Amino acid sequence: MKTAQPLIQRLCLIGVGLIGGSLARALRDVGEVGEVIGCGRGEDNLRAAVRLGVIDRYVTDPAQAVSGADVVVIAAPLSAIEPVLRMIVPCLSADTVVTDVGSAKGSVLADVERVYGAIPPHFVPGHPIAGTEQSGVEASFATLFQGRRVILTPLAETSSAAHRLIQRMWELTGAEVIDMGVRHHDAVLAATSHLPHILAYTLVDTLARLDDRAEIFRYAAGGFRDFSRIASSDPKMWHDICFANREQLLEMIALFSADLERLATAIRNEDHAALLATFQRAKRARDNLYLE
Amino acid sequence: MKTAQPLIQRLCLIGVGLIGGSLARALRDVGEVGEVIGCGRGEDNLRAAVRLGVIDRYVTDPAQAVSGADVVVIAAPLSAIEPVLRMIVPCLSADTVVTDVGSAKGSVLADVERVYGAIPPHFVPGHPIAGTEQSGVEASFATLFQGRRVILTPLAETSSAAHRLIQRMWELTGAEVIDMGVRHHDAVLAATSHLPHILAYTLVDTLARLDDRAEIFRYAAGGFRDFSRIASSDPKMWHDICFANREQLLEMIALFSADLERLATAIRNEDHAALLATFQRAKRARDNLYLE
Repeated sequence: MKTAQPLIQRLCLIGVGLIGGSLARALRDVGEVGEVIGCGRGEDNLRAAVRLGVIDRYVTDPAQAVSGADVVVIAAPLSAIEPVLRMIVPCLSADTVVTDVGSAKGSVLADVERVYGAIPPHFVPGHPIAGTEQSGVEASFATLFQGRRVILTPLAETSSAAHRLIQRMWELTGAEVIDMGVRHHDAVLAATSHLPHILAYTLVDTLARLDDRAEIFRYAAGGFRDFSRIASSDPKMWHDICFANREQLLEMIALFSADLERLATAIRNEDHAALLATFQRAKRARDNLYLE
Repeated sequence: MKTAQPLIQRLCLIGVGLIGGSLARALRDVGEVGEVIGCGRGEDNLRAAVRLGVIDRYVTDPAQAVSGADVVVIAAPLSAIEPVLRMIVPCLSADTVVTDVGSAKGSVLADVERVYGAIPPHFVPGHPIAGTEQSGVEASFATLFQGRRVILTPLAETSSAAHRLIQRMWELTGAEVIDMGVRHHDAVLAATSHLPHILAYTLVDTLARLDDRAEIFRYAAGGFRDFSRIASSDPKMWHDICFANREQLLEMIALFSADLERLATAIRNEDHAALLATFQRAKRARDNLYLE
């Protein structure tokens, strides 16, 4: 029987969706959270979160919600981070640690600086690399982060106690926690996550606008199904990510477009060797990546 | 106990890989094939096919392999179809029906015309829309075609008896068999299969050539895994498909590239409405497609 204090006595979630909800479930499962307060714009969703046992209660005003919390996790779309911070900062206790789960970190730190005028020691920027194309608290589950990676991008100004607390919080969910520089994080994510989402959205939209789209989709084979799954992701969330990580994403799109154009040229010019070499290189890289 | 004659007394497979092997297994499972003769370039693979019970025996010379077969299925890469036809055509019995499984049909019919000088009544062009990123007879399984679609593109010259036989053969594997025009088939497949493969190969290759590729791939998240799975497909097979369906594929790449450029411009110009509308349209199309 667990007798020690939980790691977090009061957790405040601003945004109770897939990520926030799964975090609360995971911490509850290991008995490392006392009370969970939810806050968010949709009261239906908050009521569902209470019903599902994900949060203990909800408060609709963020400024009130953070009161007395050890940890505040902002698990809202990137475009909501600045307004949320403006509302909560005046009400944070001196020892409250704040973190976020945004998929781009440069923009979050810019938001933080705009609101605080500087990087405060108690803010630990974070990003769990986990998620599905589902969203909402109903889709949340306690094991979402098991075996996944969580990237933290602390700055020189970040308090090491705050950093350690957020590190420990994510470790308790079964994730591997890694520190990374802000720009590096945004470059890696532009390549591995933001670009693929853009390609999936674009492909599905390109096909959806063809004259014989009904027929086209009828014959979409297995590869397409997997390939296009991420095009079911939340449009607003991905809209925010694209603008938040604009420069690095545009750079990756340009790289990709040039490579695609080169491949098209090889097909046009019957450059068999170039095409085969590209496919072989890609297959080797993919096979080495996941030994399925 | 089955007492009637099987649909096919002697089946000859030219190419005993994932598709050919799965077809033989499926027909054996329903007791609708007598003897299965395998033929192909790799003797190791053919020996494995005998050991696995997929074929009864193998013959390395295609001309000999087709002798006495009711049905010959050419399940070889598209670039092998013309040379295979040149070898087997002089040795086919008058009542042998020949079909193929190629992912592009215009090029197969051009091959057929070059070899025969005309479209022969006993050739039924076919394409099972099934497959995994695996290849080889070891990856074959009897239920590969269950619930999948097989497209046949018979021409005016095609004998209706030959057409019906191949139709029945695929129906026995659990597939839904559909007839389609040749150009239409190639357009639909360019959009739903050939373009997605090109995008997956290009994406993996773009990332694999970045300086920090090791790190990049380490953080590749769930979406990327699904998205890039088809980049593990057989490079030679996809090389052949790209050239076989060159015009329609280039057209689709051009459409996609223009759409991607438009999206990049929207991101660059902070056109929030355009980006959100595209993502929403794509999500709606994807969600309607597969009610997961």
